[in-house]
Amino acid sequence: MKLKMMYSFLNSDINIIEKKLEEAIQSGSPLLQQASMHTLQAGGKRIRPVFVLLAGKFGKYDIDVMKDVAVALELIHMASLVHDDVIDNADLRRGAPTVKSKWDNQIAMYTGDFVFALSLELMANIKNPAAHKILANTIVEVTIGEIQQIKDKYRYNQNFRDYLRRIKRKTALLIATSCQLGAIAAGAPESVHKKLYQFGYYVGMSFQIIDDILDFTSTEEELCKPAGIDLLQGNITAPVLFAMENDLNRKEIIKVKESTSPEQMAEIITLVKQSGAIEKSFALSDLYLEKALTVLADLPANKVKKTLRDIAKFIGRRKF
Amino acid sequence: MKLKMMYSFLNSDINIIEKKLEEAIQSGSPLLQQASMHTLQAGGKRIRPVFVLLAGKFGKYDIDVMKDVAVALELIHMASLVHDDVIDNADLRRGAPTVKSKWDNQIAMYTGDFVFALSLELMANIKNPAAHKILANTIVEVTIGEIQQIKDKYRYNQNFRDYLRRIKRKTALLIATSCQLGAIAAGAPESVHKKLYQFGYYVGMSFQIIDDILDFTSTEEELCKPAGIDLLQGNITAPVLFAMENDLNRKEIIKVKESTSPEQMAEIITLVKQSGAIEKSFALSDLYLEKALTVLADLPANKVKKTLRDIAKFIGRRKF
Repeated sequence: MKLKMMYSFLNSDINIIEKKLEEAIQSGSPLLQQASMHTLQAGGKRIRPVFVLLAGKFGKYDIDVMKDVAVALELIHMASLVHDDVIDNADLRRGAPTVKSKWDNQIAMYTGDFVFALSLELMANIKNPAAHKILANTIVEVTIGEIQQIKDKYRYNQNFRDYLRRIKRKTALLIATSCQLGAIAAGAPESVHKKLYQFGYYVGMSFQIIDDILDFTSTEEELCKPAGIDLLQGNITAPVLFAMENDLNRKEIIKVKESTSPEQMAEIITLVKQSGAIEKSFALSDLYLEKALTVLADLPANKVKKTLRDIAKFIGRRKF
Repeated sequence: MKLKMMYSFLNSDINIIEKKLEEAIQSGSPLLQQASMHTLQAGGKRIRPVFVLLAGKFGKYDIDVMKDVAVALELIHMASLVHDDVIDNADLRRGAPTVKSKWDNQIAMYTGDFVFALSLELMANIKNPAAHKILANTIVEVTIGEIQQIKDKYRYNQNFRDYLRRIKRKTALLIATSCQLGAIAAGAPESVHKKLYQFGYYVGMSFQIIDDILDFTSTEEELCKPAGIDLLQGNITAPVLFAMENDLNRKEIIKVKESTSPEQMAEIITLVKQSGAIEKSFALSDLYLEKALTVLADLPANKVKKTLRDIAKFIGRRKF
């Protein structure tokens, strides 16, 4: 089953979200609109708004309230992508034929700031002070994670604790917060929104581990970027860490640096795949997925529980 | 009288703010702490926290509440400076002997994000929903202004409307918001906090016009940067706009571009000074200052009104 089919009953609400995302961006100058629209149209699964809406079904679901939280969370995600692009462009620039001028980086930085500010405007509609605290804490953690990610690049002596903390900040926290704020905005009790946070956290961890696996197992066409690009850019992910548990593999992998050629990278990718690291990474993802499903089972009866389970399983086991 | 002497009765509270600013930054990684501390120690007048505190005196002043708003506003200001530095470093880099690596720009971007996120954590302590709306709107405007400032660079056919809108977003709005949120946090009535917003807005406009004058009239030692650097970087400010009202001056000024030599810039600075543009700019600043004082007179009797008047006059007429 396709992901979108799992929550087709939300279609009209998701259209509202999509429209509101476009509307929000319209408030900027033409240049800001263009730059933001570029990110918006790049798409993505809108998984954060979907979690906001589904979590809202555990309380008094009112799309007029839910939409502000859903759009805000997607905008925060977008803003972080725009800022990450500044970094990624910088790295890709060295090998790529077209050199991005600094102008682009400046615009990207300010576009990220703008998109992020838009999310605050929407969140300001939410009266619950707890929601603001939770979101602010999450954003602080995400920004700490962003710097940490730069510092951890090509640091081959890092361990799983470093990796897990990084993907928590990079991905899991915002998905956890989407689930929790959706429930809070709908006035769900604390026992429920805290469990939804846990659920989102585990799903987010599983999600990112799969993402990191796909960097090795997908083709360039599926990824829209070269396979192994994470490692080439110095991102040490679960498959790399598992592969490095073998000393011979480790010796080869730690040679990877920005200037490593595509041919050398192809060899490294094969090496990672043959080391059993992919299977171990899937098992790690499954561990988080199982935890997510356990928390989910513990939530009050609700017809969206099946939807959340389907999405979690899809995300945690997807092949592209 | 020195600026700090004007509000010496706030000294112990300002020390609390200063301590809390340092504390807030400690929550980051060592690298983030270092990068943030650099901006923090660069100092500045802490004029936004001072306005927050003084505005709070129009309500039930509780430093435990006020400090969160005061620190949040200063952090937002800091964050915008850090992001502006990315732009400025980029420009200065071309002429400077030491080339800043991209690494620094990345860190600056994420440090700005982090410092901004910290401000949200503090603001989350403020329960008043109106405060969040006002601040969010201001931040959106500031980010729109940041992009506009890039687009307006070296655009010599802009007019005063462009300039005034730009300095409103760049400076006046955040000072206005500092005044208003200080009053709101202290529970002052709407009639009062709206007037304080107006007061802050006019003071902020005057403040920025003076800043733009000083770029021409101060020495390099006073500014800690070369005189005329704003114009060299393409920033068309009040003195430039006034000077360009004369066609002969205009012909010379519009030749200024990034590659203009220090000798050529010295000639342009002399030309601006001799055109009467500095005096006209002071008159423009005075106009806003007078408006600020009129609004202030209309506020309820309060002993801090004299302090606010002194600060406004100092800011609006300072010589360095």
